[in-house]
Amino acid sequence: MFNKILIANRGEIAVRIIRAARELGVETVAVYSEADRDALHVALADEAICIGPARAASSYLNMNNILSAAVATGAQAIHPGFGFLSENSKFARLCEEMNIKFIGPSASVMDMMGDKINARAEMIKAGVPVTPGSKGEVHTTDEAVKIAEEIGYPIMLKASAGGGGKGIRKVNNVEELVPAFEAATAEAKAAFGNGAMFIERMIFPARHIEVQILGDQHGHTIHLGERDCSLQRNNQKVLEESPSVAIGHTLREKICTAAVKAAAHVGYENAGTIEFLLDEASGNFYFMEMNTRVQVEHPVTEFVSGVDIVKEQIRIAAGSELSVKQEEIVFKGHAIECRINAENPKFNFAPSPGKITNLFLPSGGVGLRVDSAMYAGYTIPPYYDSMIAKVIVHGENRFEALMKMQRALMEFDVEGVTTNIDFQLELIADPYVVAGDYDTSFLGNVFLPEYLKED
Amino acid sequence: MFNKILIANRGEIAVRIIRAARELGVETVAVYSEADRDALHVALADEAICIGPARAASSYLNMNNILSAAVATGAQAIHPGFGFLSENSKFARLCEEMNIKFIGPSASVMDMMGDKINARAEMIKAGVPVTPGSKGEVHTTDEAVKIAEEIGYPIMLKASAGGGGKGIRKVNNVEELVPAFEAATAEAKAAFGNGAMFIERMIFPARHIEVQILGDQHGHTIHLGERDCSLQRNNQKVLEESPSVAIGHTLREKICTAAVKAAAHVGYENAGTIEFLLDEASGNFYFMEMNTRVQVEHPVTEFVSGVDIVKEQIRIAAGSELSVKQEEIVFKGHAIECRINAENPKFNFAPSPGKITNLFLPSGGVGLRVDSAMYAGYTIPPYYDSMIAKVIVHGENRFEALMKMQRALMEFDVEGVTTNIDFQLELIADPYVVAGDYDTSFLGNVFLPEYLKED
Repeated sequence: MFNKILIANRGEIAVRIIRAARELGVETVAVYSEADRDALHVALADEAICIGPARAASSYLNMNNILSAAVATGAQAIHPGFGFLSENSKFARLCEEMNIKFIGPSASVMDMMGDKINARAEMIKAGVPVTPGSKGEVHTTDEAVKIAEEIGYPIMLKASAGGGGKGIRKVNNVEELVPAFEAATAEAKAAFGNGAMFIERMIFPARHIEVQILGDQHGHTIHLGERDCSLQRNNQKVLEESPSVAIGHTLREKICTAAVKAAAHVGYENAGTIEFLLDEASGNFYFMEMNTRVQVEHPVTEFVSGVDIVKEQIRIAAGSELSVKQEEIVFKGHAIECRINAENPKFNFAPSPGKITNLFLPSGGVGLRVDSAMYAGYTIPPYYDSMIAKVIVHGENRFEALMKMQRALMEFDVEGVTTNIDFQLELIADPYVVAGDYDTSFLGNVFLPEYLKED
Repeated sequence: MFNKILIANRGEIAVRIIRAARELGVETVAVYSEADRDALHVALADEAICIGPARAASSYLNMNNILSAAVATGAQAIHPGFGFLSENSKFARLCEEMNIKFIGPSASVMDMMGDKINARAEMIKAGVPVTPGSKGEVHTTDEAVKIAEEIGYPIMLKASAGGGGKGIRKVNNVEELVPAFEAATAEAKAAFGNGAMFIERMIFPARHIEVQILGDQHGHTIHLGERDCSLQRNNQKVLEESPSVAIGHTLREKICTAAVKAAAHVGYENAGTIEFLLDEASGNFYFMEMNTRVQVEHPVTEFVSGVDIVKEQIRIAAGSELSVKQEEIVFKGHAIECRINAENPKFNFAPSPGKITNLFLPSGGVGLRVDSAMYAGYTIPPYYDSMIAKVIVHGENRFEALMKMQRALMEFDVEGVTTNIDFQLELIADPYVVAGDYDTSFLGNVFLPEYLKED
């Protein structure tokens, strides 16, 4: 096991990793921007090093400063958390070169799965279903028209080098295709210096089903079941749960087996997530992408599987075998996570940074967990993500989990900033959510318009 | 299920019960003394009624006021928590007479198990091992000498009507017996108006092993495994864990089976605990007493068994069958609870009431739970028990649980009052505690003298 690791992140995930490391007897080094001097991750770590000004590009994305901090403190490994440098293969490669273990997969696997066309090709090789679409890059409108006719409308145009929602177009028919293709190509060229497109059939309505997997350095790959993350707003997950009510035993086995096949195919080492779109009517599911890092929503899986995913990440990186075998995992009950953000849902979800003048976190009883980096008196800086806490509950069944979430959110009191707690309370009381009857468009197209009509 | 219940208690257990009821969709009525106007249980309940002045005898022990509050609010049941009226059969009987369900066993079962000689006799009938001792009351020194010779020294003299440590004497030999018997008889007469004694062999060294049981109104009785509560100071538990490291599979089966037999024999309905003393060398165990209520340390069992004991209590009282069968319970991992008190361990554990000026409760990650009624700015009144929080952890194994407890206690910050957090941190780091090598005398006779020698 490592003696000391550096956590190249901030907020609740940095705190989560520091706690896991401490429980493993591993010392921790926090890094922080000038805006984060009073942050909880700084207070909880054994050592803390300032790595630059508030702007993430100058601090949490500053590879040189982070690597210097690791060298200066003698950290043997770096946990990148999520966001920031967590899926940056250049950073992983620099770590490798400096003999610092990057707690994640190898840089080459990150490259392979980070490129969407490459990832698609690898998944086809692995026998994992992918959305019907182009085999490789599409460069001309003529090609595009031909492929679209083969796979059928509606389709998605996606920039091969894409990310952040740029160079993406939904196309309903051939009339829309030519102008959309030209616009998306131009946008991709401007954003990524590469106008190449690929085409996929649009899966709609769809549920976002993702499978948590773990792979070690000894050739073991297992899954920890699926999460349903269909409740999203602008592709941002809002509420996640496990298991998904949309799939039964047989389909669950198929999806989880496909995910393990996908990860094993690329020799994946670390915790990772295979994201699928599920066509609920047909039961067909399609590989969307792989996240080569821990996810925000990992705690719902920890509740139902009993496996501590962050500790597993650290153990895997240190060369240990997975602490559980597939057949030893007993899935139990139902878990739900609500993301709590400092934002104003009634005002287009505008971020609401500022000082927390009073704070009461829900706690106590069976099956409740709050992951947060807040404390009373803490000032939420305006520079980063607005997520300030995750409330995660675990019940014997989905109904109990929903009741527990309601109890927890009713207790949760944050004064000084605006939060989405009331929004989440309404969401979990919505009849469609209570029934589990929602797809990826539900929150934005059905729930939100109703919510905004109130008062 | 009930529509509304009244919680006849305060502090963390009142909060625990309110949360469980809310998660069951049951409305709650809090009662409070004049000293508890700003208490958390008052804030969290749907309704709250003041039942008298600060002194418990005038409020939390005031049966008339509590029953009036139940009638006035239309509460269908009363949960007594622990302490206060929880083992008062007169109160249970008054509830029965007023058609308010007492969330506990029947008054007659409470009477049976509350009288020590009666309870012993019932356990013998049930085939549960009891400490070798007198069959019934002992009234004369001659009788005492004869019985003591039969069972062997050292022995314990205990007042038949006893409680609160009064009328109890340890006797090592026949020379000590006569004066001790006379003194204990006089003390018992003065305290209880009844000088009758009974005699038991003293089990020493011993471990305090107790078994959590659940019985419903339909004849089902199950156990949820054992807890080791040997770490005590003056018969007050300080740290509890499950499972006990002192017993293996076979002995565990025997003890748990005996506990189920004991509870089933008296037709027990509710959560309850059968306490045993274990002679570790021989593996013999002896019935000590039954607690006919939820215990402070119930969360360690909730962690390892996955059963919500407080919800089960409410369901049982409402007439439901147990929500689990014995064979469905899968015991998992290891759980430890540390009781956090506002007290000064360096000054004879003197209570330290006062205002909490700053508070940070440990949270987050896998397997950690804090049950507390504290909040920042809360003033701990001087009138009641000094326990202010329970930190409970759950690990895959005992080592992980200890590491997690250390992490949690290191994070725990209470400013404004003195607490035993540092004491608990030293206790869980003690080599004997780490090794699980302790009996009921260890904390008081071995650990504490060393602890007090420091600085």
